[in-house]
Amino acid sequence: MKAVVFDKDNQLKLVNDYEKPVPQKGEALVKVTLAGICNTDYEITKGYMGYIGILGHEAVGVVEEVNSEDKSLIGRRVVPEISYGCKDPNCNWCNQKLYRHCPDRHTLGIWRKDGVFAQYFTMPVETLFEVPDCVSDEQAVFTEPLAAALEINEQLHIKPMDKVVVLGDGKLGLITALALNAQNLNVTLVGKHQNKLNIANSQGVKISLLSDFHIEKKYDVVIEATGSVSGFETSLALTKPRGVLVLKSTVAATKEFNLAPIVIDEITVLGSRCGQFPPALRMLESGKIDLTPLISATYQFDNAIEAFEKNKEKDTLKILLKA
Amino acid sequence: MKAVVFDKDNQLKLVNDYEKPVPQKGEALVKVTLAGICNTDYEITKGYMGYIGILGHEAVGVVEEVNSEDKSLIGRRVVPEISYGCKDPNCNWCNQKLYRHCPDRHTLGIWRKDGVFAQYFTMPVETLFEVPDCVSDEQAVFTEPLAAALEINEQLHIKPMDKVVVLGDGKLGLITALALNAQNLNVTLVGKHQNKLNIANSQGVKISLLSDFHIEKKYDVVIEATGSVSGFETSLALTKPRGVLVLKSTVAATKEFNLAPIVIDEITVLGSRCGQFPPALRMLESGKIDLTPLISATYQFDNAIEAFEKNKEKDTLKILLKA
Repeated sequence: MKAVVFDKDNQLKLVNDYEKPVPQKGEALVKVTLAGICNTDYEITKGYMGYIGILGHEAVGVVEEVNSEDKSLIGRRVVPEISYGCKDPNCNWCNQKLYRHCPDRHTLGIWRKDGVFAQYFTMPVETLFEVPDCVSDEQAVFTEPLAAALEINEQLHIKPMDKVVVLGDGKLGLITALALNAQNLNVTLVGKHQNKLNIANSQGVKISLLSDFHIEKKYDVVIEATGSVSGFETSLALTKPRGVLVLKSTVAATKEFNLAPIVIDEITVLGSRCGQFPPALRMLESGKIDLTPLISATYQFDNAIEAFEKNKEKDTLKILLKA
Repeated sequence: MKAVVFDKDNQLKLVNDYEKPVPQKGEALVKVTLAGICNTDYEITKGYMGYIGILGHEAVGVVEEVNSEDKSLIGRRVVPEISYGCKDPNCNWCNQKLYRHCPDRHTLGIWRKDGVFAQYFTMPVETLFEVPDCVSDEQAVFTEPLAAALEINEQLHIKPMDKVVVLGDGKLGLITALALNAQNLNVTLVGKHQNKLNIANSQGVKISLLSDFHIEKKYDVVIEATGSVSGFETSLALTKPRGVLVLKSTVAATKEFNLAPIVIDEITVLGSRCGQFPPALRMLESGKIDLTPLISATYQFDNAIEAFEKNKEKDTLKILLKA
């Protein structure tokens, strides 16, 4: 089958004769319909996690085979959560379905498991979620990043009167601001690109250009979605004493900064990563947000390398691959 | 009066003719009995906060005058909380008695308010707490650092089954480990100095030398009390996914480290600073902990500069100044 592979020579390649995966016991074989490129994929091509294999962890597809007695998933349109765990009955993480924290986990296209930038992938059936009929493939392919945004609500009680800022108007910042706004929270998206900010604003999100935004320690919750050192520092300068700074970006580079303000103002810095899928699918099904304006371009699978190049461009938001 | 002053030439000096302070409306004049040197005092002499004036914020003394109608504090033995706020009825911080977060605060010997390394200091009466008779001056002088340790309990619910590590066997680490252990929590103090660890162990705290301690991501709560980059990194390596790393030290230097583990393991980094005094005085009164073994030496006030030199020595714990 065709697959986009990051190989042991640190080369990104479109391979035409990659071996089609065989579902192991408890796994399903999924035929990919649409997949999305994430910045983590780009980080991996720069060495993040030391991963080698098929890239990609955002996809929607149709189940073709199931290697278990219950075949009910066959023919269903599904999205895969990105990690699966050891399934040891004594594993506290697996028992909570927090597979992403299982120390013996596998993660699609990131860690010990071939990803979704291929014609097929396999994943354990318990990680596959059926997509409601009213949710298009173009919306469903955003389930994983939307779940990551909603993970903030899993970790933190954001109160109705809290003042919330999302800093950064890239994909992550836009999706996070839209998702919080859809929950009736008091959120302002701050970024450097009027055209990107407008995508959120057209769905009712308050926006501001960073250059117009008064930097003051008055926000209860600040969500850092820039992935840059200066973004972290600005976030700290916006968080009020005893407030929460949510860190959403996994940047491979080391950073240098003064920790003292975290202690002096008793700030909580909350690392936040992937989320569970049911709340994300519920939000997509309700029509509360529309993520399709984030699609910058859709490439046929044969042009995947070109799609990766396009993804590097500054003004690009989501790039999709069509199988 | 005599006073230890950090002056505009960045010199630490014992001054014999510093003007005795006059209590302003709502303030009391306190005659100092005993004061303690904190590492923050040392940091200030290296430029932290840009403070100039009388140093010191840990003290016990006796009230001599009160500039208000209610004179009932006169003659009472008291300890001062270190900050007072703007007292504006609309100040949310002052209303919660969280004077230390008031943007218009003054802080004893640290920010816009002469400190306690003098024969006298003044503070608003609402910041002065009477010391119970059964608590000696040598115990009472630890009220401020003990309150800082107990601030962790104000910010974070540490559960009975949680595994807690305190990293660092300096004053802050020892006081924190003793305070948590006194609350029946499951705490281990990890450090590099057997003699310091033994102080905690003799009061029932589990201890380990760092060199003997297995570094593994399995602790629910890790309290960083070393103030070093390597200590922060070790703390991160001990915190389990979704666990809490409490940052207790205000270090003036910048640090360089990779933020990605905070996001990947969804760690909460919680900055924690000063605390309120009633729980600390309650703990001292109950006799649950004995902090006097932390006293390395007591100097007469005339030898204050020598005391500061002694404080820099590696094996020194608390140095007291006797007025």
